[in-house]
Amino acid sequence: MRILVVGGTGTIGAAVVQALTGSDTEVISVSRSSEPAVDITDTTSISAMYEAVGTVDAIVSTTGAAPFVATSEATPEQFAAGFADKLGGQINLTLLGLPHLRDGGSITLITGILAQHPVKNSVIAGTVNGGIEAFAVSAATDLPRGIRINVVSPNVIEEALPSYGSAFPGFHPVPAAQAAQAFVRSVHGVETGQVFRVWR
Amino acid sequence: MRILVVGGTGTIGAAVVQALTGSDTEVISVSRSSEPAVDITDTTSISAMYEAVGTVDAIVSTTGAAPFVATSEATPEQFAAGFADKLGGQINLTLLGLPHLRDGGSITLITGILAQHPVKNSVIAGTVNGGIEAFAVSAATDLPRGIRINVVSPNVIEEALPSYGSAFPGFHPVPAAQAAQAFVRSVHGVETGQVFRVWR
Repeated sequence: MRILVVGGTGTIGAAVVQALTGSDTEVISVSRSSEPAVDITDTTSISAMYEAVGTVDAIVSTTGAAPFVATSEATPEQFAAGFADKLGGQINLTLLGLPHLRDGGSITLITGILAQHPVKNSVIAGTVNGGIEAFAVSAATDLPRGIRINVVSPNVIEEALPSYGSAFPGFHPVPAAQAAQAFVRSVHGVETGQVFRVWR
Repeated sequence: MRILVVGGTGTIGAAVVQALTGSDTEVISVSRSSEPAVDITDTTSISAMYEAVGTVDAIVSTTGAAPFVATSEATPEQFAAGFADKLGGQINLTLLGLPHLRDGGSITLITGILAQHPVKNSVIAGTVNGGIEAFAVSAATDLPRGIRINVVSPNVIEEALPSYGSAFPGFHPVPAAQAAQAFVRSVHGVETGQVFRVWR
């Protein structure tokens, strides 16, 4: 089995790579600085990455950024940046990845608790997360060749607390390894069109 | 009270204008072909429209388009068009409208049942609807000066059945006048950060 992990060098991504790696599983981890590299905001870069990687059984995304800003200070350009990165980037990973996915393969995207539970300045992140979750619900109804699609929505990650913890007051962090298991469930399970919320 | 309705010439928009119009309420209805006109995909056009309209107590949007296409045939450009129109257009109506809203005013945006319940080829519409709903949930937490924001999500509209009915098999249509009451509730009520689902 060959599994592509986009964003495999991040906190969650590294845990996902570790959780998916096995004796009969080759995990290909790509990022902005890997070889091949990928910039998910650039469709040419995505296509070139897929050409280099070849056919896979699963596409996993643990990447995507969105600006943090208050609604009243946000600009149309900042929202457009979020649409082009975490939202459109993951959707384009899906659209352009389909020809490289084996029959019965799967796609797993990432959102986060901010879709339903905002924190200060998270309006753009929340918006793009909401779009990704609705995308997966819709796409699951018409993906061809038995291909499945799910989303993993983690709470704030325990290992990221030193960087982001103060932005999530009272949120119960989850270890990256626990979030990674939701990706394992999506890749090796049978469900489709689901949002796996890793909240506790 | 002055209320701006963007898209007031559409099936839902016309019903909203009628429902909001009253002896003490001036409803300003704008569209692509009104005077002033507005193209929600163009921030310059939005800003010019607000300058012409002046200060209002409520901004209501009943507009926004997204391409209909199967996921496996959708292009990044088609998704980008949906992001720029129904999703980004309504968000930009919000961002650029804030300075023109009175203290305690309100914003009401529109999505639809496709966010949660897809029909054939609705993947882009569903995605943008999901983004808008999450946007309102987040923005409600930090809008300034007591400004509220809600979303109305109607089922397929009874008056649109001749055009769209066959795309919504088994969906229970709602009259435009019923959907319009959810906009009235958003404008004249006290709730914020809500998605009013007009489904039956």
